[in-house]
Amino acid sequence: MIDPACIFCKIAAGQIPSAKILADEHAFAFMDIGPLAEGHLLLIPRQHYVTLDQMPSEQAAGLLRHLPALCRALKQAIGCEGLNVLQNNGRVAHQVVQHVHFHLIPRTSGDAFGFNWPADKYPAGRMEQLAAAIVAALKE
Amino acid sequence: MIDPACIFCKIAAGQIPSAKILADEHAFAFMDIGPLAEGHLLLIPRQHYVTLDQMPSEQAAGLLRHLPALCRALKQAIGCEGLNVLQNNGRVAHQVVQHVHFHLIPRTSGDAFGFNWPADKYPAGRMEQLAAAIVAALKE
Repeated sequence: MIDPACIFCKIAAGQIPSAKILADEHAFAFMDIGPLAEGHLLLIPRQHYVTLDQMPSEQAAGLLRHLPALCRALKQAIGCEGLNVLQNNGRVAHQVVQHVHFHLIPRTSGDAFGFNWPADKYPAGRMEQLAAAIVAALKE
Repeated sequence: MIDPACIFCKIAAGQIPSAKILADEHAFAFMDIGPLAEGHLLLIPRQHYVTLDQMPSEQAAGLLRHLPALCRALKQAIGCEGLNVLQNNGRVAHQVVQHVHFHLIPRTSGDAFGFNWPADKYPAGRMEQLAAAIVAALKE
């Protein structure tokens, strides 16, 4: 399904111009016009899904099989030291466009993008309790 | 290939205990013991790859086809408002364990994890120049 009001559906269909990197049956990749670093790419499904949980697993496979080659191409073309892959679901997670998109963000020392890492610890038994609930939800 | 010195290879092989969420031929998912939020999961390939650019595309497809179902299970079990998928390549990108891993980080308003978004603009012609270099690298 395509959403005729969605800017990323229009980009994947070629109705809005973009700096295209790759395209196939499932996937479309192009340059982010508001880059966090030089070479910042977006990899999106051609079909319209708002969030990742809505995608069938085979659509996700067809989309995300391109990630390694895109990482290799970015490393070679940009000469970055590292790279983050980031995908945001929901406003609270910083999703702005309502169509699934994976950011590929080249990283170099002293660059502008970053995140914190407030790692916590579970109280005794809590991790196992949550794991059981997640496994049960996965089986439904 | 398995790296006998790698902690994530040992976890996927069951040699180090973990709170397992799913396992198949290509993939293993388990609870992060230093969570950024309740329910923080890690999805890893069974084979040893240090960074995503090293993975064959079919291995990436086999691994990442599980992302949508894991997102659905987390939403249901945790009741989070959103979710970030994050994968870090290289020290500069905050990679700590030297085996590819995708973080699934549940998000709720006012939580601890976060990132900035220093979006920039390209000078005229620069985006197209970089896109051409990335496309050329992708074809090699």
